[in-house]
Amino acid sequence: MEVDANGLEILDRDECLRLLAHGTIGRVATTSRGLPVIVPVNYCLRDDVILFRTGPGAKLDSAIDNAVVAFEVDDFDPLYHSGWSVNVTGRAVEIVGDDLDCTERAPVSRWAPFGGGHMVSISTDMVSGRRLARF
Amino acid sequence: MEVDANGLEILDRDECLRLLAHGTIGRVATTSRGLPVIVPVNYCLRDDVILFRTGPGAKLDSAIDNAVVAFEVDDFDPLYHSGWSVNVTGRAVEIVGDDLDCTERAPVSRWAPFGGGHMVSISTDMVSGRRLARF
Repeated sequence: MEVDANGLEILDRDECLRLLAHGTIGRVATTSRGLPVIVPVNYCLRDDVILFRTGPGAKLDSAIDNAVVAFEVDDFDPLYHSGWSVNVTGRAVEIVGDDLDCTERAPVSRWAPFGGGHMVSISTDMVSGRRLARF
Repeated sequence: MEVDANGLEILDRDECLRLLAHGTIGRVATTSRGLPVIVPVNYCLRDDVILFRTGPGAKLDSAIDNAVVAFEVDDFDPLYHSGWSVNVTGRAVEIVGDDLDCTERAPVSRWAPFGGGHMVSISTDMVSGRRLARF
């Protein structure tokens, strides 16, 4: 088992994608008015690509700008101090045209009452993960 | 109830701080080698200030640089599509000297096997929150 400087297990790409495939909520870090912001989104992983919906605001702005964003999913047990996190770094690209028709069948429902009409993708080319084992 | 463009309830400062006070895991968004990254941390809220430990790496680098970071806590129910999130934007400041002695009694235990010897604070002067009600 490979560990990092903090003693956390370094997860390989296959394990990161497996964990991403089972998640529901992730967080996107982007910049809004020059300041960093983290926005939670419901998402799905399809063909190794992160898909989520967005409305007007920071997330969409980033997508339109093709900005490089961070996307994170984690699951921790506060009682046992164990868990894992997976980080994806990639360009947030709004899906339009024929590609949008394909993704409309993806299981990414709209949770908010309004908005969510835009579909955004993030490639998982750059993915990393850590696991904190139960002691 | 005040709502945003997506129909999410806008939480006031008191409610944001109440939610932050009950959380255990938050996420810090910062920049590592020019790319955005999100790092989960266990934290506590003390005197309206976010406190968390860190080891060598992106989080500490940000703290030493007094970088402005985003800090987020959320809790969602995937079944009912409900939940909330709170965002803090502020300068990550490493606590040193006498201030460190005071914070050593804060309930922020070290979860990772190594590291965590540095305490970092983020002011909650800039805080915002949203709630997605169950429909």
